[in-house]
Amino acid sequence: MCQLLGMNANTPTDVMFSFTGLATRADEHKDGFGIGFFEGKGVRLFVDEHSARQSPVAELVKTYPIHSNQVIAHIRKATQGRVALENTHPFVRELWGRYWVFAHNGDLKDFRPRLHGQFRPVGDTDSEHAFCWIMQELAKAHAGVPAIDELGCTLRELLPQLHRHGTFNMLLSNGEALWAHGSTKLHWLVRQHPFGAASLRDEDVTVNFASVTTPRDRVAVIATEPLTAHEPWQAFAPGELRVFVDGAPR
Amino acid sequence: MCQLLGMNANTPTDVMFSFTGLATRADEHKDGFGIGFFEGKGVRLFVDEHSARQSPVAELVKTYPIHSNQVIAHIRKATQGRVALENTHPFVRELWGRYWVFAHNGDLKDFRPRLHGQFRPVGDTDSEHAFCWIMQELAKAHAGVPAIDELGCTLRELLPQLHRHGTFNMLLSNGEALWAHGSTKLHWLVRQHPFGAASLRDEDVTVNFASVTTPRDRVAVIATEPLTAHEPWQAFAPGELRVFVDGAPR
Repeated sequence: MCQLLGMNANTPTDVMFSFTGLATRADEHKDGFGIGFFEGKGVRLFVDEHSARQSPVAELVKTYPIHSNQVIAHIRKATQGRVALENTHPFVRELWGRYWVFAHNGDLKDFRPRLHGQFRPVGDTDSEHAFCWIMQELAKAHAGVPAIDELGCTLRELLPQLHRHGTFNMLLSNGEALWAHGSTKLHWLVRQHPFGAASLRDEDVTVNFASVTTPRDRVAVIATEPLTAHEPWQAFAPGELRVFVDGAPR
Repeated sequence: MCQLLGMNANTPTDVMFSFTGLATRADEHKDGFGIGFFEGKGVRLFVDEHSARQSPVAELVKTYPIHSNQVIAHIRKATQGRVALENTHPFVRELWGRYWVFAHNGDLKDFRPRLHGQFRPVGDTDSEHAFCWIMQELAKAHAGVPAIDELGCTLRELLPQLHRHGTFNMLLSNGEALWAHGSTKLHWLVRQHPFGAASLRDEDVTVNFASVTTPRDRVAVIATEPLTAHEPWQAFAPGELRVFVDGAPR
């Protein structure tokens, strides 16, 4: 299984703490990593086919505070597709003049729908194929960027068709909101005022969020497994889709 | 004027030396930088809206040897479009299951053709608009990835239509070849056996290529202005299009 990390915030926030927690799990997930940051409508994507433990790119992400409202990260253990840069999540496509960022954890069996539209996979993973299919179907269902709730309705129709083929934990963002779909393992958490301290489960790192936030800051974190001890992480139900806007589930 | 740097090689090669030369010119070109590396069909894109002089991302690119056959880099001095991540070159799109990377130096006046196809700009630069138009027209002209020479024929029809609107120095790659179009200022150079030493014009850095190459290595470098002293840089004629394959012009 790969590991996912998502962040949705009402104010640009860095993910150095959470990404450090994710990267400690990279021993078992050594087949590359990637992280995409929305900054306004722009996207900054760092990918490396080396483990997040050793990669100098991962080191930069852990130490350079990139402030973003929407982040999607992934560390990979290859199930389908070679270990290669083009198979490294997250994947990015443009539709309606916006970037869309997607990462998937799981394994889809026998899911190779015909792609007749404008989106084609560059690599050979089931995940990128599924992403291209989602983008194709979104492009058919709407004429331009739909409102967040409308897009949620369309995804609620599309995602069960994927989930039926196997494990489909997923994160998707267009910079305005972050959609998370649970299948076998996905957790979420909201951090807001009054902020406390949190400690990573896998590494001896503690952050006192009260000292680095203002009372109006709010951040939702989504991760395959809870990254911290003593915080109220909640599990997604199988097939549950949640959309996060301004740091909270909607 | 922005500054462009392109590299096309017959063996995966790092561009730390040339990028260091480019980054020294970032004092005047402080509105962001970007660099895209093809690794097989995959693309690794580093962008930052900070100057390549100060950016930790640029520091990584100068010190982490990323080996690639096709590189396109750009340092930006904004003429059209705000200083923002979504306006930072190079731009990337997917077509026919391949990534396409594009960077532009210049300024197109009154060039806003209607985009009726699948490619829309995310930011507000003339450059990204021109790139979307090129991709749209390529998608209309071919049913799948064309051979390099066929693609060159199509570009020879398309690019004069852009050049007519202003300055259009451009680099474009799909990972197989690198197309360079000269307008006002663009130079190229091939380094091959027997390799010598080269010194950056703007910085006290010298590399003896003979010690880091094999006799069959060949690298073409394309840059707005010659990056090194005492090497036979050649200027592009206005309107000249060249395609570089395996480290040499074709």
